[in-house]
Amino acid sequence: MLRGKNQKNNGKLANRFKDLLTVKWENNQVIMIDQTKLPGKLVYVRYKKYEDVARAIERLVVRGAPAIGVAAAFGMSLAAISSKAKTKKALLKDLKIAYNRLRSTRPTAVNLVWALDRIMNEASSKNELEDMKESIVHSSLNMATDDITTNKQLGKNGAEMIHNDDVILTHCNAGSLATVTYGTALGVLRAASDMGKNIQVIATETRPVMQGSRLTAFELDHYGIDFSLIPDTAVGHLMSSGLINKVIVGADRILKTGHVYNKIGTYQVAALAKRHNIPFYVAAPSSTFDLTSKVNEVVIEERNKNELMKMGNKLLAPKGIKVLNPAFDVTPPELITGIITEIGIINPPYEKTIAKIVRHG
Amino acid sequence: MLRGKNQKNNGKLANRFKDLLTVKWENNQVIMIDQTKLPGKLVYVRYKKYEDVARAIERLVVRGAPAIGVAAAFGMSLAAISSKAKTKKALLKDLKIAYNRLRSTRPTAVNLVWALDRIMNEASSKNELEDMKESIVHSSLNMATDDITTNKQLGKNGAEMIHNDDVILTHCNAGSLATVTYGTALGVLRAASDMGKNIQVIATETRPVMQGSRLTAFELDHYGIDFSLIPDTAVGHLMSSGLINKVIVGADRILKTGHVYNKIGTYQVAALAKRHNIPFYVAAPSSTFDLTSKVNEVVIEERNKNELMKMGNKLLAPKGIKVLNPAFDVTPPELITGIITEIGIINPPYEKTIAKIVRHG
Repeated sequence: MLRGKNQKNNGKLANRFKDLLTVKWENNQVIMIDQTKLPGKLVYVRYKKYEDVARAIERLVVRGAPAIGVAAAFGMSLAAISSKAKTKKALLKDLKIAYNRLRSTRPTAVNLVWALDRIMNEASSKNELEDMKESIVHSSLNMATDDITTNKQLGKNGAEMIHNDDVILTHCNAGSLATVTYGTALGVLRAASDMGKNIQVIATETRPVMQGSRLTAFELDHYGIDFSLIPDTAVGHLMSSGLINKVIVGADRILKTGHVYNKIGTYQVAALAKRHNIPFYVAAPSSTFDLTSKVNEVVIEERNKNELMKMGNKLLAPKGIKVLNPAFDVTPPELITGIITEIGIINPPYEKTIAKIVRHG
Repeated sequence: MLRGKNQKNNGKLANRFKDLLTVKWENNQVIMIDQTKLPGKLVYVRYKKYEDVARAIERLVVRGAPAIGVAAAFGMSLAAISSKAKTKKALLKDLKIAYNRLRSTRPTAVNLVWALDRIMNEASSKNELEDMKESIVHSSLNMATDDITTNKQLGKNGAEMIHNDDVILTHCNAGSLATVTYGTALGVLRAASDMGKNIQVIATETRPVMQGSRLTAFELDHYGIDFSLIPDTAVGHLMSSGLINKVIVGADRILKTGHVYNKIGTYQVAALAKRHNIPFYVAAPSSTFDLTSKVNEVVIEERNKNELMKMGNKLLAPKGIKVLNPAFDVTPPELITGIITEIGIINPPYEKTIAKIVRHG
């Protein structure tokens, strides 16, 4: 179905409109695109154990807040199926172990906890062992399907903000590869493009993990949307040169005050957009909202220094030096023009509008 | 004299205070550190032909505005020595060919033109062939010596702006490796450190060529100054977290209005510093000033897309995509707290102060 390495010669056009399916459930296994291998190879990996799914989330085989949520839910399905528990209590104990392991993988994206909590609630609400297992698998499959519906609606809502001849900057990857498929920020751009709007995209490399070069560029190329790749250092220069007139990014967690946690670098893109009066939009499903935490309570993941020190086996900096590698930052509400969700577009003042529109949490 | 790969076991301490000599003249040859091999290997290359020096400047074997100026002057010395001209006119013709080739290497840094013009003027002022050749070599050697004196004075002047416990961000490499030795922005930090001030440095990676990871990190490590490396995407986050209280960078060209051309990414660092009320200093010798050009007249070099697409042989993004790779940007005067030169620190309003202090051009 997807463009694999053996299908290269089929040409791009035939595949251009085929969806990349980032994570799926098949024959009681979780199948994912191994995103660490992109853009060089489009490789699928299969997991039968939740521990391997947890490790895959940590290693960024799968990343992107919505995709992580669904992957974790499938991880719970694996845990349920493989459990040898004979009682509800014993199964819940096994599930809680898997829950804790999966939850510990990454601290910042809230969709992970949201999905895991939903699965645990689902399991707890049943009485029979087989019902419990079945409902977990059923619930995780629903989550995957809902993710697609949600993103398509979100894309449609957001596409109204995109005008003919817009040049839109995006940071990191909030595309098919960050979701089950279709994407959030890139979903908006796909929807606009599908509506026949003539757009150009500017994609930042997004150091250190280069989700822009490796994933967003791969997707935009795959879907045939006109784009240019830039280094993260060129954002300000291109904005001051008047070459960008809109920004759209995804989110890993949005607080009810409108503070947006997203890939490191998002805050400075937003601050630069503000300086140049360029509208800055966030696109995220309602599962990204965390209506209870406060700004100083959210943990910003600090990742391994090797992400900066190495590229494959090549050493990029002298051995043994100190590195700061925060994976996320927080963009304050005053820099955000609007938050695009599947429910609709949320406008400031966020401390009032978010709580009205988003009901969970 | 320098820490080479065969001297690794001598330990760092013994070498910590030894100067890295970026470019020098020896036995009628130009010797340079091959900066494309850093930080993995400290390798010296020798050139006997000006064409090879020109190619080395293009390939970033040598980079940094002051170092490029001196390298180009040495290139002219090679052209003079190897010329078979029998008359002044013929020698000037040979020199003009070398001048044009060397000048064409990189468009943005002004020290290149400054150095080449000085050499041509020197040559034109003599009448005898041997006098001409000798004066060119002499003049280029003086330029190299002056560069060191200038940087040490600049460092001393700038160190007064650095206080105990400062955490100073620097972008790109304005160190020994960007000059003959000692450096401009890093020279200020070395001088402050030598005065016993307790400082910490934050070095950005500086995509796409990674002068921060490869060169600044190498130098700060070499000189034993406490520092951490960060991705370019983390600048805003660290500033908003209150972890940085000063910024200092070099410059490739400074106009009399105070517009500063420097490595891509400088403008956004300056804009973010402004947003967070963090003083932003530029350190550059007076040879960096261009008192005649206007903002829209300066060419910003667009470099090869492979700088973003590849790391060694590893492909970082899908083949065939479009890339924007401007090597420099312009920081407007309103973002600059002060310009540190060997003559003194220049303060705003720059349209008045620069012309008063800098006399050439």
